[in-house]
Amino acid sequence: MDAYLVPRTDKHQGEYVPLCFERLLWLTGFSGSAGIAVVGLKKAAVFVDGRYSVQARNEIDTHLFELPKFGASRPVQWIAHAINKRTGVVGYDPWLHTVSQINRLKSSLAAHGISLKPLSRHNLVDAVWGIERPPEPVNKVIVHPLKYAGATSREKVEIIQDQLSSDGIDHAILTLPDSICWLLNIRGSDIAHNPVVLCFAIVPQRGKVELFIDPAKLDARSRSHLKESARLLALEKLGNRLFEIKAKNKRVGIDPSTAAIWFESHLKKSQITHMADPCLLPKAIKNRTEIAGSIKAHRRDGAAMVRFLAWLSGKAHRGHVDEILAAKKLEEFRAATGELAEISFDTISASGPNGAIVHYRVTQETNRKLKNGELYLVDSGGQYLDGTTDITRTVAIGHPTKELRTRFTCVLKGHIAIATARFPKGTRGRDLDPFARRALWSAGLDYDHGTGHGVGSYLSVHEGPVSISRAGSFPLKPGMILSNEPGYYLEGHYGIRIENLVLVEKAQVPKGGEREMLSFQTLSLAPIDLALVDKSLLVEDEIAWLNAYHARVLKELSQELDSETRRWLKSATARI
Amino acid sequence: MDAYLVPRTDKHQGEYVPLCFERLLWLTGFSGSAGIAVVGLKKAAVFVDGRYSVQARNEIDTHLFELPKFGASRPVQWIAHAINKRTGVVGYDPWLHTVSQINRLKSSLAAHGISLKPLSRHNLVDAVWGIERPPEPVNKVIVHPLKYAGATSREKVEIIQDQLSSDGIDHAILTLPDSICWLLNIRGSDIAHNPVVLCFAIVPQRGKVELFIDPAKLDARSRSHLKESARLLALEKLGNRLFEIKAKNKRVGIDPSTAAIWFESHLKKSQITHMADPCLLPKAIKNRTEIAGSIKAHRRDGAAMVRFLAWLSGKAHRGHVDEILAAKKLEEFRAATGELAEISFDTISASGPNGAIVHYRVTQETNRKLKNGELYLVDSGGQYLDGTTDITRTVAIGHPTKELRTRFTCVLKGHIAIATARFPKGTRGRDLDPFARRALWSAGLDYDHGTGHGVGSYLSVHEGPVSISRAGSFPLKPGMILSNEPGYYLEGHYGIRIENLVLVEKAQVPKGGEREMLSFQTLSLAPIDLALVDKSLLVEDEIAWLNAYHARVLKELSQELDSETRRWLKSATARI
Repeated sequence: MDAYLVPRTDKHQGEYVPLCFERLLWLTGFSGSAGIAVVGLKKAAVFVDGRYSVQARNEIDTHLFELPKFGASRPVQWIAHAINKRTGVVGYDPWLHTVSQINRLKSSLAAHGISLKPLSRHNLVDAVWGIERPPEPVNKVIVHPLKYAGATSREKVEIIQDQLSSDGIDHAILTLPDSICWLLNIRGSDIAHNPVVLCFAIVPQRGKVELFIDPAKLDARSRSHLKESARLLALEKLGNRLFEIKAKNKRVGIDPSTAAIWFESHLKKSQITHMADPCLLPKAIKNRTEIAGSIKAHRRDGAAMVRFLAWLSGKAHRGHVDEILAAKKLEEFRAATGELAEISFDTISASGPNGAIVHYRVTQETNRKLKNGELYLVDSGGQYLDGTTDITRTVAIGHPTKELRTRFTCVLKGHIAIATARFPKGTRGRDLDPFARRALWSAGLDYDHGTGHGVGSYLSVHEGPVSISRAGSFPLKPGMILSNEPGYYLEGHYGIRIENLVLVEKAQVPKGGEREMLSFQTLSLAPIDLALVDKSLLVEDEIAWLNAYHARVLKELSQELDSETRRWLKSATARI
Repeated sequence: MDAYLVPRTDKHQGEYVPLCFERLLWLTGFSGSAGIAVVGLKKAAVFVDGRYSVQARNEIDTHLFELPKFGASRPVQWIAHAINKRTGVVGYDPWLHTVSQINRLKSSLAAHGISLKPLSRHNLVDAVWGIERPPEPVNKVIVHPLKYAGATSREKVEIIQDQLSSDGIDHAILTLPDSICWLLNIRGSDIAHNPVVLCFAIVPQRGKVELFIDPAKLDARSRSHLKESARLLALEKLGNRLFEIKAKNKRVGIDPSTAAIWFESHLKKSQITHMADPCLLPKAIKNRTEIAGSIKAHRRDGAAMVRFLAWLSGKAHRGHVDEILAAKKLEEFRAATGELAEISFDTISASGPNGAIVHYRVTQETNRKLKNGELYLVDSGGQYLDGTTDITRTVAIGHPTKELRTRFTCVLKGHIAIATARFPKGTRGRDLDPFARRALWSAGLDYDHGTGHGVGSYLSVHEGPVSISRAGSFPLKPGMILSNEPGYYLEGHYGIRIENLVLVEKAQVPKGGEREMLSFQTLSLAPIDLALVDKSLLVEDEIAWLNAYHARVLKELSQELDSETRRWLKSATARI
C-alpha cells in the first residue's frame, strides 16, 4: 500500500460523529465537520473545503500534514504526485466511504495508474488509537410515542414496503440512523444534539424489518416496542445476512450517496439497484401530528427566545454580557420550559466580528463581550419530543449605524420574500433561493450559504432531501419543514442572519387563480429587532408582513410570558 | 428489420429544416418542429410533445398512424409492444440522430431485447419520396462583412484552436450551420428565416478549417473570402477525411448532443472526446461591434414597430384589420427600413383566443378580425445584417376589461423583474426565471414556456447555450443577448406576452457593493400598452422602470419617425 485514506465520516455518513469515531480529529487535530486525510509513505495531507481553510490551518500541525489549497490540488492529483510511480495502491476502510465516493475516486485514480484497495479487517487508525480512545456509545433506545410520531411503525413500514413492491426491490438497506429511528419510532442519544440510535436495518418487501443493533442499547420496554415491527439482530450478523441474501439472488436497493461501499462488497453487482433511501421522502413530509407538535414546540421555544431577548435587552448594552454567558442563559430559558430534551446544536453566540464566521462556536479563547454599537447574532434551537427548532436573531447592542440598518433590512427583505412566496407544485428549492438574495444582489452583496435546509421532527436539525439552495433540486411538498435563513457577513466586522422555520402547505389561491399553489407558514415566533429595520427601504407588502408577523408573535406568546416580559414583547413588536 | 425511425430533424439538428428534408411532414402530414414517427411492419405511430398534441391530431391521418398520448406510452414501450417478440431490430438513418439520442435509445431498447441498426446507404423515406420532392437548397454563400462581424474568421478560428490545444483535441467536428457561419463570417439562405449555409466543418488544432460544402453554393467572392481561413472540400469527401483521421489515431472532439451518430461510426471509440461545440460560447458572447450593431438594429426595428402600432391603433378598433393584414403590414414597415434581410420567423399575429396558442401561425382558415374588447398579440422580428430582433407586444383593441388589465400587469411585473435584476457572476438562467413568475404565482397563475432564449447576431433567433428557463443551467456572461418574455394564456380566450431582447452587461455596483454583478440592458424599443397597465398593482420601482423605459423609447426613436407617428408615440409613452 502506498497511501491510506482517513475521512471524517463514520459508518453512517452523518453530519455528527461520536467521539470514538472522530478518527480525523484524533489523527490531525482538525475538528471541522467535513474533510479527509491522505497518509502516504513519506508525506501526508488533509483536504478541507473553503469553509474550513482557516480553521484547518489553526488546528493542524503543518509539519506533519500538508494543507493543499481548496481546489488547487484535489486529493487525486496530490495522491498521484505523492506516489509518483507508474502504479500504486491506496487503501481505505470500506465502512467509511459511500458507494458513489469510491466509484468516483476509483475512476479518477485509475487515470493515474492507481488502484483502490478496501481493507475490511481493521481500520488502520483504530489499530494505533490506544487506551485514550473513548468507548462506543451504547445509550438506551427510547420509544418515540405515537402521540408525537403520528403514525405507528407498522404503518410506516407498510408505506416503505409498498414502494419496494412497486419498484421490484426485495430488500432495502438502511444506513442512516435518522431514517431507521423515524421508521421504527425510536430515539436515542448516541450522538450529541441528534436524538438518534446508531444502527442498521434491512427492510424486506414483506414481513418484519431486520434491525441490527447492539443489544446493550435495548431494555424491556424498547424490545417490546420494536418487536411489533422488527426482528432484533446483533450488529455482527449483518455480514452473514447479506451473504444469505446474495445466495438467494434477491434484488437489493442501496442508496449510493449514503451507504458504505462495504454493503456492495457483500452482494453481487447484478442484484443491486441504486435508489434513494426510501425513508427520506416520507420522513421529510411531516404528518398532522408532527405538524401540530412542531407548532407547539415553536410556541414554547419562541417564549424562551423572547425571555432571552428581553433579558439581553436589559443587560447587554451595559457591557455585562459575553458570548458564553448569553449562550448559557438562552439554554437556561429553554430548559426552564421543562420540556427540553437537549439543544439542537451548539449555540452560535457571536458578537461583532465573530458573527461573520458562519459556523462560529464560542470558546474561552474567542469569547467576546457584547459591545455597544455592535451586532449580536444568536443561532440556536431546541430538541423537544414534539419537534425540533432552529432560529436565528441578530440584535443591535446600543444604537446601530445606518450601514447596519441598511444591510439588515436587505436581509430582512430576502427573508420576507421567502416567507411570502407562493409557488406551483413541482417548484424546487433552487427556484426559490434567488428570491432571498434579490435585494442583496441589487446592493452588490450576497451570502455564501444556502437559504434553507430541511428539519426533522425530534430528529436531525439538518435533514434531507430538500433544501432552498442553488443545489436544491428536490420539489417542495406540503408538510415539509425548512429553514428560511438569508444572511450577510462582513469579514472581521459583523454578521447578520434572520432565520425562521417554515412549513410548506397548500396555498390559498386568490379568486381567479388557476393552478394548485404551495406557500410557507412561518413556524418560529420571536421578534425581529426593529432598531435594525429601515422602514424606508421596505415596500408596503413587506411592512404588512412584518407587522402581521409581530402581531402574531405577541398574540401567540402573550399567555406564556410574565407581565414584565410581555410588556417588553409588546414594545418589541410595535407596528412600524 | 421490424421498424424504422423517421425523425423530424435533418443532418444538422436545427429547429428549421429545408422542405426537402421535411421527411416527417411528407410521411405523416405533421408540420410541428419536433416529433418522430416509428413505422413498424404492421402499424406505425407518431410521437410529439405536449405543445403539439392538438396540432398532431388535426394534421395526421389516425387510420395510418397511432398517436400515443404524451408521456403515456413513450416510443420505447410502443416499439417493444409493436414488435412483440423476444428479439427485434429497429433501423434508423445515422445522419438524422445525435450520438446522445442513439445511446439513450440503444440502452432502453436493449432492456426489451431490441437492437438498433444504422442504415447508412439510403434513407427509406428518400427511397420512396418521388418526383414531387423539392430540390436541396443550393443558395449562394454571402460574405458577412467585418463591419458587422467585429472579428475576422482568422481571429475566431484562433480562439477555437487555442481551446482545442488546451483540451488536447486534434480535430473538432462542427455540424451546426450557425456555428460554422459564425466562425467563417459567412451567411446564406438555405433555410427560411435563418441566414445560414448548410455545411459541415472540421477544425484542426493548427492550420486551416476544412469546410465541406456543395461547390455550387460558392462564387468567386465567397471562395476568395473563405480561402483565408478554410480549405474547401466537397461534401462527399467528409467520410474519407474521417477515415484518414481515424487511421492517424487523432483525438477528435464531438458534441454528442448535436452531432449525428454517423460521425462516430467513422471513428474509433477510443479517439473520441465528447465536448460542447466549441463555437457555442464565443458565438453567444457578442463582441463590441455586434453589440453596437444590435443596438442600431433595435432602434431601426423599434421605429418600424412604432409605425405599426400607431397604424394599428388608428384602424383596429373599427374592425377593419385581421391577423393576416396586420402581419403583412408589420412586415411592410420593417421592409420600408430598406435594411431588412428577412423576417426572423413567421410572425405570430394572434387576436383573441388565437393569442393563447403559444406557437400560433395564422392561416386563411384561422384568420380572425381584431375585435373591440379583445387582445391582439404580435410576436415578430427582423433579420438585419447588423442584428437579429425578436419582440412581442400585446395590445388592447378598444377598452380592456379589469381582468385583462390585472393579468397584463402581472406579466408586466415579471418582465420588469427580469429587466431590473442585478445578479452575481455565475448566475444561471434558471436562477432568474422565477423572478419573471413571482407575481403570476402570487395570483395562482403561471405560463408553460421558458422566460428567455439566446438570440444570434444576424443568425438564429433561438440560439444556445444559454436560456432563462427552468432548464437554463448555463451561467450568463456579459455580451450575451437573450429574450425576456413572460406571458399568460387563457385557453380559448386570450394570450398575453411582453417580450424585449436584453443584453447581459457588467452592472454598476452601488456604493458599498462588494461583488462583481451583472445586469441586463433592454435593447428592444417599443411602447407597452398603457391601457392594459393597472398602476395600482405596481410598486414605485416598477412605475419608475416603466416611465424611464418609455422616456427612452420616445427619445431614441423620435428622429426616426414622421411627426404624426411621433405624436402618437408621445401619448403612448406618457408618464403614469
